[in-house]
Amino acid sequence: MENKIPDLNMLKEVSEKLGQIVHNTPILTSSYFDQLSGSRLFFKCENFQKVGAFKYRGATNAILNLSDEERSRGVATHSSGNHAQAVALAAKMNNIKAFIVMPENASKVKKYAVAGYGAEVIECKPTLQSREDSLRDVMNKTGAVLIHPYNDYRIIAGQATAAIELMKKVDKLEVIMAPVGGGGLISGTALAAHYLSPETKVIAGEPEGADDAQRSLSKGEIVPSENPDTIADGLLTSLGDKTFGIIKDHVKEIITVSDEEIIQNLKLVWERMKIVIEPSAAVPLAALIKEKDRFTGQKIGIILSGGNVDLDKLPF
Amino acid sequence: MENKIPDLNMLKEVSEKLGQIVHNTPILTSSYFDQLSGSRLFFKCENFQKVGAFKYRGATNAILNLSDEERSRGVATHSSGNHAQAVALAAKMNNIKAFIVMPENASKVKKYAVAGYGAEVIECKPTLQSREDSLRDVMNKTGAVLIHPYNDYRIIAGQATAAIELMKKVDKLEVIMAPVGGGGLISGTALAAHYLSPETKVIAGEPEGADDAQRSLSKGEIVPSENPDTIADGLLTSLGDKTFGIIKDHVKEIITVSDEEIIQNLKLVWERMKIVIEPSAAVPLAALIKEKDRFTGQKIGIILSGGNVDLDKLPF
Repeated sequence: MENKIPDLNMLKEVSEKLGQIVHNTPILTSSYFDQLSGSRLFFKCENFQKVGAFKYRGATNAILNLSDEERSRGVATHSSGNHAQAVALAAKMNNIKAFIVMPENASKVKKYAVAGYGAEVIECKPTLQSREDSLRDVMNKTGAVLIHPYNDYRIIAGQATAAIELMKKVDKLEVIMAPVGGGGLISGTALAAHYLSPETKVIAGEPEGADDAQRSLSKGEIVPSENPDTIADGLLTSLGDKTFGIIKDHVKEIITVSDEEIIQNLKLVWERMKIVIEPSAAVPLAALIKEKDRFTGQKIGIILSGGNVDLDKLPF
Repeated sequence: MENKIPDLNMLKEVSEKLGQIVHNTPILTSSYFDQLSGSRLFFKCENFQKVGAFKYRGATNAILNLSDEERSRGVATHSSGNHAQAVALAAKMNNIKAFIVMPENASKVKKYAVAGYGAEVIECKPTLQSREDSLRDVMNKTGAVLIHPYNDYRIIAGQATAAIELMKKVDKLEVIMAPVGGGGLISGTALAAHYLSPETKVIAGEPEGADDAQRSLSKGEIVPSENPDTIADGLLTSLGDKTFGIIKDHVKEIITVSDEEIIQNLKLVWERMKIVIEPSAAVPLAALIKEKDRFTGQKIGIILSGGNVDLDKLPF
């Protein structure tokens, strides 16, 4: 599974297996947003997923696919956010040791959450270099297996299951939208739609301040994310070769939005839908609202990717 | 219907009728709060109700019970909060004129919302005297019929439908909890449990800073709410004779909580359940957590009464 793009059978198998483990999250509708957008929206609420984000799907699938030998060595990753918690919990549920490299400036709440799941937290300087060095170091010392946050077909197949659940409950979607950061969620979503509902367009939302995926798609090769600057802190990373390969073939379009548009839609979701989502999750909705005239009357699925926010540091 | 306590048939009839009109709101569970409380909790999410609060149930039922002659005169009420929006929307849905007296210091967002539903907003000074005077004035001028926020059996029967929906989906609840302000929700809940699941105890949560219901229950007569002071701004009012009559007979206990306890549980619900609730809605949960040792292992329904908060003025 690790070295080829998941096929339809693989996705079905993963979806069935994860169906016993992850939450089949609710799909909400909102007459307010239907009116605002002029389309019919179906929100797949991954903010209600375990650990508060879709990341638990991919992490679980990656861990379920380890060999016994790999399981005995444990797993490792670096992350300041949702992937850290997802790997820590998925490892705990499978009685596997987890080593999570986190930047020293990551929020205390997140570090405690990761440690609370029984993972070993290794602190590093808040630079990519230091994160990668520390990770290599801990993997060398412990023999732990890397669980990459997105550039891994097991992760991509896991993330695909959110869209599979959505399409099972809501048929004939004309569009499915999701945010793009490293590309795990959007590439899984695009694969799922390609196999199960090929007439459905998959469109990504991306922050203007971290628009490397849009630039990669138009240039035809990976453009790294350099000095990204956006409130959507889950979308700072660059694409990987595996996610970009799928995005290039199956994602129709990437719409970028400003932080102002993200914050405005974030607040509207809280106010009107009474649910807590994180800034990254508001990006596809902001993208739709920005370009709404092109989607009038269409049936649109939006994956709300997560709900982990620091309530003491809200942007409004 | 107006002059006698609703019986079982009446509640069933109202529930069936409202079932076509109001949202049958989701019931959420939370492994976090199950662990924290030591009991099994079922949250009836009226924050997802139309206008963002259970109030839409009672207002709708009251309006559906008007005679043709009354309908032609229109409806009136005074409220700075959820009841204002509930009456305005229910009137609009039934093509009836609504006159809503609101204190001049009520939030602009709420005034716009009420006016947005097509109701006529009449501003008054922010005192009970001025509210009542203005209401009498507008009723005299227009002939509009009063829709009282709680002391009305049509309202009580409407609010009862939240608990009826909850008990239909989750059987053998040992306890149902709801907040108490004027008593419309808790008395409806208590009646519903009395008829449909008499072994279920109904317990109210109330803010310490507005504990008139607890004092009324222990004194055996209505003690008015004087200078109430609490963050739970939906629970400031005094009981009425109709709500008190039912509470006296069917509510087992009222547990009071401090504003600190309310805010702490409010924040935990946002963080852990990823849903937006208002301070008043956190009161019964805070009451349960405070007294959790008495409820270990029990199956408990909690009505989350609403989710209308000003995101620019959060208490945390």
